[in-house]
Amino acid sequence: MKAAVLENKGIINLRDIEVSETLSPDDVRIKPVSIGICGSDVHYFLEGRIGDFIVDEPMVLGHEASGVIVEVGSSVQTLKVGDRVCMEPGIPDFKSTESLNGMYNLDPAVQFWATPPIHGCMRENFIHPASLTFKMPDNMSFDEGALVEPVSIGVYSVKKAGMNPGDSALIIGAGTIGIVTALAAEASGCSKVFLADVKKEKLDFVNKHYADKIQTIDLTTEVLADVISEFSTEGVDLLFEASGNKNAFLNIADSLKPGGNMVLIGMPNDPVPLDIVSLQVKEITVKTIFRYVNTYPRAINLIASGKLEVLPLVTNRFEFTESVRAFEYASTLPPEEIKIMINMGNDN
Amino acid sequence: MKAAVLENKGIINLRDIEVSETLSPDDVRIKPVSIGICGSDVHYFLEGRIGDFIVDEPMVLGHEASGVIVEVGSSVQTLKVGDRVCMEPGIPDFKSTESLNGMYNLDPAVQFWATPPIHGCMRENFIHPASLTFKMPDNMSFDEGALVEPVSIGVYSVKKAGMNPGDSALIIGAGTIGIVTALAAEASGCSKVFLADVKKEKLDFVNKHYADKIQTIDLTTEVLADVISEFSTEGVDLLFEASGNKNAFLNIADSLKPGGNMVLIGMPNDPVPLDIVSLQVKEITVKTIFRYVNTYPRAINLIASGKLEVLPLVTNRFEFTESVRAFEYASTLPPEEIKIMINMGNDN
Amino acid sequence: MKAAVLENKGIINLRDIEVSETLSPDDVRIKPVSIGICGSDVHYFLEGRIGDFIVDEPMVLGHEASGVIVEVGSSVQTLKVGDRVCMEPGIPDFKSTESLNGMYNLDPAVQFWATPPIHGCMRENFIHPASLTFKMPDNMSFDEGALVEPVSIGVYSVKKAGMNPGDSALIIGAGTIGIVTALAAEASGCSKVFLADVKKEKLDFVNKHYADKIQTIDLTTEVLADVISEFSTEGVDLLFEASGNKNAFLNIADSLKPGGNMVLIGMPNDPVPLDIVSLQVKEITVKTIFRYVNTYPRAINLIASGKLEVLPLVTNRFEFTESVRAFEYASTLPPEEIKIMINMGNDN
Amino acid sequence: MKAAVLENKGIINLRDIEVSETLSPDDVRIKPVSIGICGSDVHYFLEGRIGDFIVDEPMVLGHEASGVIVEVGSSVQTLKVGDRVCMEPGIPDFKSTESLNGMYNLDPAVQFWATPPIHGCMRENFIHPASLTFKMPDNMSFDEGALVEPVSIGVYSVKKAGMNPGDSALIIGAGTIGIVTALAAEASGCSKVFLADVKKEKLDFVNKHYADKIQTIDLTTEVLADVISEFSTEGVDLLFEASGNKNAFLNIADSLKPGGNMVLIGMPNDPVPLDIVSLQVKEITVKTIFRYVNTYPRAINLIASGKLEVLPLVTNRFEFTESVRAFEYASTLPPEEIKIMINMGNDN
Repeated sequence: MKAAVLENKGIINLRDIEVSETLSPDDVRIKPVSIGICGSDVHYFLEGRIGDFIVDEPMVLGHEASGVIVEVGSSVQTLKVGDRVCMEPGIPDFKSTESLNGMYNLDPAVQFWATPPIHGCMRENFIHPASLTFKMPDNMSFDEGALVEPVSIGVYSVKKAGMNPGDSALIIGAGTIGIVTALAAEASGCSKVFLADVKKEKLDFVNKHYADKIQTIDLTTEVLADVISEFSTEGVDLLFEASGNKNAFLNIADSLKPGGNMVLIGMPNDPVPLDIVSLQVKEITVKTIFRYVNTYPRAINLIASGKLEVLPLVTNRFEFTESVRAFEYASTLPPEEIKIMINMGNDN
Repeated sequence: MKAAVLENKGIINLRDIEVSETLSPDDVRIKPVSIGICGSDVHYFLEGRIGDFIVDEPMVLGHEASGVIVEVGSSVQTLKVGDRVCMEPGIPDFKSTESLNGMYNLDPAVQFWATPPIHGCMRENFIHPASLTFKMPDNMSFDEGALVEPVSIGVYSVKKAGMNPGDSALIIGAGTIGIVTALAAEASGCSKVFLADVKKEKLDFVNKHYADKIQTIDLTTEVLADVISEFSTEGVDLLFEASGNKNAFLNIADSLKPGGNMVLIGMPNDPVPLDIVSLQVKEITVKTIFRYVNTYPRAINLIASGKLEVLPLVTNRFEFTESVRAFEYASTLPPEEIKIMINMGNDN
Repeated sequence: MKAAVLENKGIINLRDIEVSETLSPDDVRIKPVSIGICGSDVHYFLEGRIGDFIVDEPMVLGHEASGVIVEVGSSVQTLKVGDRVCMEPGIPDFKSTESLNGMYNLDPAVQFWATPPIHGCMRENFIHPASLTFKMPDNMSFDEGALVEPVSIGVYSVKKAGMNPGDSALIIGAGTIGIVTALAAEASGCSKVFLADVKKEKLDFVNKHYADKIQTIDLTTEVLADVISEFSTEGVDLLFEASGNKNAFLNIADSLKPGGNMVLIGMPNDPVPLDIVSLQVKEITVKTIFRYVNTYPRAINLIASGKLEVLPLVTNRFEFTESVRAFEYASTLPPEEIKIMINMGNDN
Repeated sequence: MKAAVLENKGIINLRDIEVSETLSPDDVRIKPVSIGICGSDVHYFLEGRIGDFIVDEPMVLGHEASGVIVEVGSSVQTLKVGDRVCMEPGIPDFKSTESLNGMYNLDPAVQFWATPPIHGCMRENFIHPASLTFKMPDNMSFDEGALVEPVSIGVYSVKKAGMNPGDSALIIGAGTIGIVTALAAEASGCSKVFLADVKKEKLDFVNKHYADKIQTIDLTTEVLADVISEFSTEGVDLLFEASGNKNAFLNIADSLKPGGNMVLIGMPNDPVPLDIVSLQVKEITVKTIFRYVNTYPRAINLIASGKLEVLPLVTNRFEFTESVRAFEYASTLPPEEIKIMINMGNDN
């Protein structure tokens, strides 16, 4: 079948590839409709690796997808041919200790789309467990469905933060994940959401599309501590670190209320210096996340309800036939653009 | 000073009364501006008692209030004369075991406005602890400030429920508390909120003002279980019982998801029959609330952010001079009306 | 193979039966060594049913078991032939929504040993998922291993209660489950554990074996409220209802501290009357459990550490060849006896 | 009155000092019986400061105390003259936001004994709020009462960690706080407790007195990761950092299970490097503590129950008249000694 194949570092082809898959009784077969390009796709394209995950052999790209079911396994009862769906891209061993404990995202055996050596979903069709395939409400578009994947990280972060009604939140880092986390915090009941970054174009984007929901802080012209203390001398209830920038960590407790919670989303390349005492005197709790778990229904519900508007994030669209060009464009994406969506052509 | 005084069962006078109060260093003196009439005020008026709380001597009514600070104690640093404020009506012993544990609402020594023998706030001015007096944002009106009190019950219920982003909620009972709980659930990130009752006028009111936020269920024409299972075969994540109606309890677990949480807000007169096994097979957790604790800032933030719109609830306004008539009207309030607000005349 | 077969109500035979089972790659085959007789086994024997679960065809009994692995599936890496193990008796659909959320015990598709129409484990050997089969420490006996099953209910109840260091606990009902819950509470750090019942023989048993850990309350001669208030005027932190007795519920909040937690373990036959207001004024949280989830390792660790001594519970031992007589004896078990253990004869 | 007065850095006198105190209605007056010397006392003695807290004028030392009530304020109902008690040494503003939220330890206005400029308790008598004064059970000695203070840090750490029945724990750092945390973890239901340090004398002390409760790890001869992985390939459930040593932090997640919790107790002088990604891939939660809150009753109950044996920690005793020599000895305390207790001479 046709697929967008990363041959090795720097080389993508749209070509035929054979993927050996068997439909088990609990599986469904899906034709993808919309697939977003993620930073990790681009990273594998440019570098041929992320940490210990190395592209040793040709790998199909793509893991943010929605589509239509074209075949169902014999035991599947909750889905049927024709259903419009989106999919969690990571398949755990459902019987592992972590899975039994409701943390299947932490199962070391997880097979995640487009993480070597696992093929991604940017191909004519693929097989997936029904239990990780979620029916989309009628009022949700395929592009929204594909965006459930990155939005899940934001929703999971807010869930993990232990948000309470009326909380205030500060998100550091206005990349795609920072933005969806800010949107998730706002949609989930935060009464005030700050988003801070040094990149003017990202903040402009947010101000243009989400000014009524998010207050941006331009770290090149504003002092974070001043903005927060003007809002509240105590600080915010929740802080989300989505930049992974080493410098964000040292005094990160300064903006937080006593007893506040922090979620670390961004992944710094190296160990970062942290002032432990500044955390202790406020009894800050530092939570961490790895992808997401059991959040697809939540993200779908928030998007379908209209509370979490994601479509402005799609700043570029390409056809599947143009996908090589799309990845090339993605690798030099201007900062004012956010998400490239590939139309796989199966929506009709 | 002039006050609305409940002399005893059935007799209210607007008359001079002497209230002996001393301003301690931690106190402020407040002139009230807006005061809502609560069902408990009416109940004391009509019955002369609620449970063991009996009106034995003349008592000033009113506990849902906003106002302006006219004097501050010598130690008060966070408030100043002229500040627009709203107040928690219950004053605990701040050193009790319950208070130290962050549950000051459960302190048996709480002195609560207009709960015998404690005078309420419907008078020219009163003294209150600064720590239970909250500055209102500039964009919040005095009527909104007075409504923070009932809204706090809804916000507290949602906080106690342990709401997670995208949860669905069912509220049983469309009285004032049921409605503010539904509004709080919606404002706090629920992606779907149902409100069920048998009183058509209440549901009409909600449909008129909050149709985009709340889906009403008319229990005289719709079957609760059917409506919920059509929404989700599993049930809702959260259930709030705000009717206190004996019949609501027996099969109350039917509408809830496995692992779901329930908050009991309504107070039934007598013991109710409950099917324990139906809770166990889904491992439902039943939480209960008594008033609220530490929720004023949350309720204020949600109202000021625009997420929780309360002004439609004020269906009637009276001047302080008309307060006797206001209570009489309140005691026969038509079901399509919700909240009577008294203007104390100090806003200028 | 030989098995203890419940033919139908009242008739048990030790006879050959064919059980069709296939060893999947994730499975192990086990020869049982010790199997405890549970109240539910006896109930099926005497009544032929429990609720909607009806013995329509011959069913092998037994679900509290330890044993030795005699064969492992091709994918099994954590277990090997010869390992001494105990097993969770309920096999869920590992891909169900409940399982993914870490609540596999609530999966409606759970297949539980000796719950019609699922065969139990009192037979020569059986196949089981490796992920529900737990290696026993060397210092743990097979009888202790079989007791991990009932102990798990106690451990899960204590975990679910949200116990904190130094909490006090009251258990109502001194049946097997009440006793193991009291032992679990004590082993898990409760500084004071009360166990109340009307059955003198049960209390005598506890006093004889566990006097240093548990204070019994004889409800025929002592007033529960008096004993508790003498211990603490506030009440206990945690209450476990393990009697299922209708009369235990009405005033159940009286013995609990404000903010206290209650876990309902016993399953009353009919709806019980509950005083909701008495729960509300203390903001009691009522939790419920259904069997247990992810507690085998915890129960094993507590038993192996010596903190939770279970062997005194085994008051009777029978050989597999005597199992018909064992069930008959179990059905008229004197109140001073607790647990009958069947030796399956495979320990060598 | 006579008191142990730190005049300034390096100079302690046992001399008369006038302390101006008034007994409010909610206060009690206490004659101390046992007072432990804490590392912070020694630090002020040797350095004249801890961080921003500087000894500018003479200050009475001591904050770990038990004693006898000799006078009660007019409103005090729960205590009476003659009661044997121990006291929390930090007095918050009971009306602060932090106090109302149940975090009075985080109130910036806390007045803590022997933290400049607040006098400590090593004097003939002192006044204290009744609500921070706790009656000791009859079976608890005054030395045990004085040890409730350091033990509270351990108990609070275990409570904050969110311990569950049967958890395993690793404590890093075998100073006094590390040891009491290990004891608290064991008493609170951990089925396995490791305590790691490089100081042989500390480990010898633990092995001598607590070998049945705690397994020590000698970091000079054993590899931490090896010891833990031999115990469990997954790691421990809970980790307590009680050394404050910079080198303990970098790979601190290695010993923890996926989803595990860590509590940071030790206060490093400088920012420490932390590998954020190693926390994220296991979704470790990092909690921090500042002193303790609402733990005195828990610590008292655990000690009185016999589960938490603290008396072996008292390795030296001095009379009040020898207190200058006691502080001098404390400042060069041999590593095999743990806690110096001062007998104030009021026990009779």
